[in-house]
Amino acid sequence: MSETFEVDEALWMKRRDEFLKRMREDLEIGYLDHDIVDVLEAISSMPGLYTQSSCSGRITLVDALMPWEREGATVVFKKHSTVTVEEIEYVATQPASSRLWLVVTGPIIHVSALSLRHADEILRLAREAGMKHSGILSMSKKGIIVELTSGVRVAHLLKDGETWVTPPEKLPDLVRVANEALLEGKARLDRLREVLGIGRR
Amino acid sequence: MSETFEVDEALWMKRRDEFLKRMREDLEIGYLDHDIVDVLEAISSMPGLYTQSSCSGRITLVDALMPWEREGATVVFKKHSTVTVEEIEYVATQPASSRLWLVVTGPIIHVSALSLRHADEILRLAREAGMKHSGILSMSKKGIIVELTSGVRVAHLLKDGETWVTPPEKLPDLVRVANEALLEGKARLDRLREVLGIGRR
Repeated sequence: MSETFEVDEALWMKRRDEFLKRMREDLEIGYLDHDIVDVLEAISSMPGLYTQSSCSGRITLVDALMPWEREGATVVFKKHSTVTVEEIEYVATQPASSRLWLVVTGPIIHVSALSLRHADEILRLAREAGMKHSGILSMSKKGIIVELTSGVRVAHLLKDGETWVTPPEKLPDLVRVANEALLEGKARLDRLREVLGIGRR
Repeated sequence: MSETFEVDEALWMKRRDEFLKRMREDLEIGYLDHDIVDVLEAISSMPGLYTQSSCSGRITLVDALMPWEREGATVVFKKHSTVTVEEIEYVATQPASSRLWLVVTGPIIHVSALSLRHADEILRLAREAGMKHSGILSMSKKGIIVELTSGVRVAHLLKDGETWVTPPEKLPDLVRVANEALLEGKARLDRLREVLGIGRR
């Protein structure tokens, strides 16, 4: 079954310029996660590709019934580098309104591609770098949206209301493993740097 | 930028027949997860679509350094329905060779589509059912592989070696929340049934 799919190239170029301008502004203001700027720039310098949003990987404490919720969830702590037991214990000791989850996520990058060929190119590089959960999220006139992501994820129930499911005296063990998970995510980003030809930072 | 993408229809039909035959065999032997058979049949009866592999959602105990690992990981417990504190405690009390993770996953279905139009159709239905992490994993002559999945996931560090990060007396809290997460995954599957027009089981 043959079929034609077409992104509106003029619209795509216009949006590309807007996103690149916003990225430069975010970088100046300090909004942009510095661990990932070189990767975004390398992808956006490839033909037919630009990056829309990204995260280099992080450790969060989320006050929510379930760790995947957006509505009704509050991120009470967020850091893009390794954490200390004291940081986690200090925040976790405050009363939570629901449950408290310690969540570690790996790098996530959203890329807009001008064509299926361009989408396929960045997908192959991502898989080569071990970001095996990558895929195409949507396709429209505005562009083909590709998500680059790995399976790196921990979602640990720390407290249920005032009950510590992992007691404070076990936090050193949990924090050590959470940091290890974070660094494994950052290592995938380093592998992506290598396959993009920009080397490690 | 206009481009043509083409799945080999004869090859796709041949593979479709093979997968449907295997599904019927798995069903007879009892390999197939009964919670999801009606959904697979409904998708495979749609034009240009058949299902390849699936899971209705499950709770596992995984002996591994990290919960996303495949190599070097051992699934020591697996159940596609709610679990009891006794089941988890019995397995968790056995010595683990590495770390022990309690993992809850929502439903996952891999669908092969004959064309981008067919892929888009099942993706829209999945999103409507709250399976918002769905996307296209790959595209080749053999078919367009679509993964239907949700963000429903818990990956909880239960033991690090012989150290209980969540002590046995807190297992009732953890198991209650894990069952709740599993049932939220099954609810997404029910919503998929509704949008597929097959109603709840």
